[in-house]
Amino acid sequence: MDKLSSLAKFKNSCPFLGHTKTSTLRSLCTSASPRYPSLSRLTERATQCPVMGPALQVRSNQMVAGYASLAGTAEFKQIHEHKGVFPVPTGTNIDKCPHASKAIAAARMADDLARVAKDKKAEPAHAAAAPSTSKAAAAGCPFHAAANAKQSTQTSGFDYEKFYVSELDKKHQDASYRYFNNINRMASKFPIAHTGDPRDEVEVWCANDYLGMGNNPVVLETMHRTLNTYGHGAGGTRNIAGNTGMHLALEEELADLHRKPAALVFSSCYVANDATLTTLGSKLPGCVYFSDSMNHASMIQGMRHSGTKRVIWKHNDLQDLESKLAQYPKETPKIIAFESVYSMCGSIGPISEICDLAKKYGALTFLDEVHAVGLYGPRGAGVAEHLDWEAQKRAGQSPDPIKNSVMDRVDIITGTLGKAYGAIGGYIAGSADFVDMIRSYAAGFIFTTSLPPANVAGARASIAYQKEYLGDRQLMQINVRDLKSRFEALDIPVVPGPSHIVPVLIGDAALARLASDTLLSKYNVYVQAINYPTVARGEERLRFTVTPGHTVDQIARLAHAVDQTFTELGIKRTSMWKVEGGRAGVGMPNAEPVQPIWSDEHLGLLDDSAPDVLRDGQERVVDARAVNITRGKFSDLLGPVEPTIRVMQMTTAPNLTSIPTEALQTPTRMTVTA
Amino acid sequence: MDKLSSLAKFKNSCPFLGHTKTSTLRSLCTSASPRYPSLSRLTERATQCPVMGPALQVRSNQMVAGYASLAGTAEFKQIHEHKGVFPVPTGTNIDKCPHASKAIAAARMADDLARVAKDKKAEPAHAAAAPSTSKAAAAGCPFHAAANAKQSTQTSGFDYEKFYVSELDKKHQDASYRYFNNINRMASKFPIAHTGDPRDEVEVWCANDYLGMGNNPVVLETMHRTLNTYGHGAGGTRNIAGNTGMHLALEEELADLHRKPAALVFSSCYVANDATLTTLGSKLPGCVYFSDSMNHASMIQGMRHSGTKRVIWKHNDLQDLESKLAQYPKETPKIIAFESVYSMCGSIGPISEICDLAKKYGALTFLDEVHAVGLYGPRGAGVAEHLDWEAQKRAGQSPDPIKNSVMDRVDIITGTLGKAYGAIGGYIAGSADFVDMIRSYAAGFIFTTSLPPANVAGARASIAYQKEYLGDRQLMQINVRDLKSRFEALDIPVVPGPSHIVPVLIGDAALARLASDTLLSKYNVYVQAINYPTVARGEERLRFTVTPGHTVDQIARLAHAVDQTFTELGIKRTSMWKVEGGRAGVGMPNAEPVQPIWSDEHLGLLDDSAPDVLRDGQERVVDARAVNITRGKFSDLLGPVEPTIRVMQMTTAPNLTSIPTEALQTPTRMTVTA
Repeated sequence: MDKLSSLAKFKNSCPFLGHTKTSTLRSLCTSASPRYPSLSRLTERATQCPVMGPALQVRSNQMVAGYASLAGTAEFKQIHEHKGVFPVPTGTNIDKCPHASKAIAAARMADDLARVAKDKKAEPAHAAAAPSTSKAAAAGCPFHAAANAKQSTQTSGFDYEKFYVSELDKKHQDASYRYFNNINRMASKFPIAHTGDPRDEVEVWCANDYLGMGNNPVVLETMHRTLNTYGHGAGGTRNIAGNTGMHLALEEELADLHRKPAALVFSSCYVANDATLTTLGSKLPGCVYFSDSMNHASMIQGMRHSGTKRVIWKHNDLQDLESKLAQYPKETPKIIAFESVYSMCGSIGPISEICDLAKKYGALTFLDEVHAVGLYGPRGAGVAEHLDWEAQKRAGQSPDPIKNSVMDRVDIITGTLGKAYGAIGGYIAGSADFVDMIRSYAAGFIFTTSLPPANVAGARASIAYQKEYLGDRQLMQINVRDLKSRFEALDIPVVPGPSHIVPVLIGDAALARLASDTLLSKYNVYVQAINYPTVARGEERLRFTVTPGHTVDQIARLAHAVDQTFTELGIKRTSMWKVEGGRAGVGMPNAEPVQPIWSDEHLGLLDDSAPDVLRDGQERVVDARAVNITRGKFSDLLGPVEPTIRVMQMTTAPNLTSIPTEALQTPTRMTVTA
Repeated sequence: MDKLSSLAKFKNSCPFLGHTKTSTLRSLCTSASPRYPSLSRLTERATQCPVMGPALQVRSNQMVAGYASLAGTAEFKQIHEHKGVFPVPTGTNIDKCPHASKAIAAARMADDLARVAKDKKAEPAHAAAAPSTSKAAAAGCPFHAAANAKQSTQTSGFDYEKFYVSELDKKHQDASYRYFNNINRMASKFPIAHTGDPRDEVEVWCANDYLGMGNNPVVLETMHRTLNTYGHGAGGTRNIAGNTGMHLALEEELADLHRKPAALVFSSCYVANDATLTTLGSKLPGCVYFSDSMNHASMIQGMRHSGTKRVIWKHNDLQDLESKLAQYPKETPKIIAFESVYSMCGSIGPISEICDLAKKYGALTFLDEVHAVGLYGPRGAGVAEHLDWEAQKRAGQSPDPIKNSVMDRVDIITGTLGKAYGAIGGYIAGSADFVDMIRSYAAGFIFTTSLPPANVAGARASIAYQKEYLGDRQLMQINVRDLKSRFEALDIPVVPGPSHIVPVLIGDAALARLASDTLLSKYNVYVQAINYPTVARGEERLRFTVTPGHTVDQIARLAHAVDQTFTELGIKRTSMWKVEGGRAGVGMPNAEPVQPIWSDEHLGLLDDSAPDVLRDGQERVVDARAVNITRGKFSDLLGPVEPTIRVMQMTTAPNLTSIPTEALQTPTRMTVTA
């Protein structure tokens, strides 16, 4: 305990480690891995390097500490090799970096502190494995000692800790180890976030809150009101105390959105896909899955978990799909599993044609619209809706299926509430008996606490609003066109596609991360690098998402920043990919131009009904009609909207001992004294 | 469209169907299943029955409609047989029931409406399958026609819809088909909820919001503030834009709670268990799972999905576990997977002894503390903490492991934020490299949107509060003792156990549901029946959960209501189980009395520090010290707590078109006009 508090004290007094998590510090001390030779050694290695150094100096102490604590030997090596700087130079340039010198001073303090600690039970064999400079730290560190003591009890059994380290080393070696950036998206400043330091603000260019619905006023208003009325958690599974009117209403809203008889909500769409495909595949006798090769991990897991046969067909290749379907009798249960928008490359599945094949070969269609719901179609029901734009628009808010429309012909639609709807959760929609069957058998649905009423209400408000208001969808696509054309003009390699995704090819894992770090540190642009296993090796990329809340000024500055970063880091441009024969759709010979599926007509560009783009300082449009319709949907459970919503509040009186539960009721303002 | 609107019009004008979901109505019409012979036939059957009738008349129109739309032939048959009423009597007693007569009138209206509909495309073969009384409805129903049209396209392929129906019929036949009650737990009236009708209030006696933390003021205050600051959804995976300071702080709070180096948060503990066990089992070479026979579905799924060997040992039987462990070499990677509190029977796993065996045989210990975190131990870390009460209490709020304590010896702890903490989400805690390995490889963690910051903050506030305040845990256990002793005095068969779970044995699926319905309809008591597959057949039960928010008066009334219901329905009492040789621990010969693991000393009964029980009308205690400490933990991200939190608000002006985003900032009150 004494040692912990001295470590904690040190942590708080040190400018370098001030934001570091206690658990990170502890792991630095306890780990027996050669990846963490010692705090001081690591810090030196990282900050003395002319390549890593500049990246590490930037943004915030937290980022530096994160790298120092996590980066592995293999990773350093790879970056160095990439830039022709190898081996790691020894400490000569350290004075050039103000952060590095502080870091090294801090590291020395840590070593000193460790040295004076009285507990010296280090295991010799273990200490020997670490570089000599770390011995003192290892010997003096109470965490180390505890770790060693624990390890020694497992001498003749399997060494689990060593196994974990070896698995992590694999990730470091192929540069697929992930560092999470600390990004806090601010409701009042969309699309701005702060990093680990609340004063340090960046623009977010890669979130999946595609429309900014996470801070739509009617969504937040509904959530505040629901929190006041029903509190936080649902308190149980759907079967036991966790089935509320909010859940039932959301499912009706979703069934209505897709013009299907029924819908069912899950913890996430990962769970919806996994649970539904697991259940279908294990129940349907002799079922065979036909899976697009680019399907999302959640679908792959579900198909695997079902234990049934899975045939993989080439991405979006109808000929390949048909040749594989034709190998099975028509009577064999088959499920074609695919997506509408593929989120990492931005391609769109040929839904209608797949439905034709499904009919011909007696297959079910399972369509993941996760990156499309809220974003495509007159009501935001997804690409399947979008493909029958006129008919769907004419049908208005009717819940009835439109016969022979693409959406009607898809048997099972899955979607998320966590992306364009800015909420949390996922769902399936389909026939009443299908949904009831999944409801009755899917373990991932049955045996889990249902989503909190406030989140469910927020999700429904978002869907209801987007059903009634087209402007956000249009403006997003207008901004996407703008960014894509700016990138094109600058010879920046955008992976071509008809959707809203803007993937920029980098082609190297370490370089992609360096580009991401550079954009963050130099240009206040947050865009995450996408590496293996999310994309294939050699096709690493930056994946930009543009929202209706981004201004044209921000878009212009982004294009400039990316252009500068490409130059600075020597990243290949479209013309260079072309010379090399192309990759991932970039610079391919004889490539046909790709048309966006949002046409000029859909965008309102032909009749001048398109929404205005925003300039810096301009406010986003919130549609009053859609707000009022959305509010009306909650009057049965939440009552009328009061002019001001006041939430429960307590005084900070130190002798406060009791709060009446009535204090939680809306709309009375509560001030409680002892 | 015309037909839909006429149906919708009818629905709204009918007192019986007023609350029925449109999708349910639609499914009644479209289904070709003999389970739904027709709306009118079903309604007649249900309401004319002297056994089902009374249950169906109760509570609300919604409940009646729910049964009428969902109950299957097999289920009616089973209830009838159970009560010796068979075959179903034909309509002679109908006049006795005011709801039934309305229902039948409504059903006739439905048939009439259907008959006059112009679309008469019913497929003869299909209509013939339904009872003759339903022909008119089937023929006249537009949904039916659409369903038939769709079906005919699949003539020679597999009949998926028929398959769904057959799977549902299995559920109906063994009475395991589940009806979800509509239960809306009100924050201002804990533990009261309203049903589908907001004016219809019931007491909740089966939720897993064990401490009422779902409406704790500091939890809700923190959530309102976080919603104002960061909006709703996280906007991405942890790797892409969804990793916030709130997430990192929650994980540090959890690592600290369990005195482990690290923790990782998942969408739910279902996902945490599934993803962690899937990953460990598939990665560890030649791994063998040793799984307690009563383990939760999420653990079973995870072990199955890993594809590795699974050895099941008898529930809580150390001898059986050891004999099975001994069959494998010590070098073989082994994982003993078990729980602390088994939620359906209330037993507690022998954690310390299992750790001894794990050490002896070189196994990892994986402990699910889902029904224990928040509820056991001086800081609410669970049963593992509780077992070293004095040492854990002495250690105060230190994050350091206590050497050789039970909690320290457990390798992996999993817990939920959705039960005692009243929130949403789940987590694992363990060594830094273990957690990092799961973070790096578990698909269920990597490829899903992270939890919303507001929920994460609410969960953390709940944990922080419970770390500092013992009174809720003590009062809950005092109330549990009270209820158990009242049941015992009334010869009500409680499954004995040392935990907070109060399972009352019924021993028959249909009877358990009838008891639940009777308690709801006659006594305003909501307790869900627990049937197969959650418990074994013949061990069906009512599972009561008592919170610190229940008053002694409510507990006394509950015991009386259960006693009355037992008499009314002729349910077996303890003494009768004893005569029959006992079941599920009830009335077993030579049974030892079970001691609760919360001792008199833990409860503060020896030194008079125990909290006071509540009487009707008394307010729950909120601990000011714990509130202030909790608030302090959020000042870095949310700033100081203002005297009044005002939330963003919009006027309802019909010409409102634009809302400044600044309107979302706290604490300024916003009123926006166009």
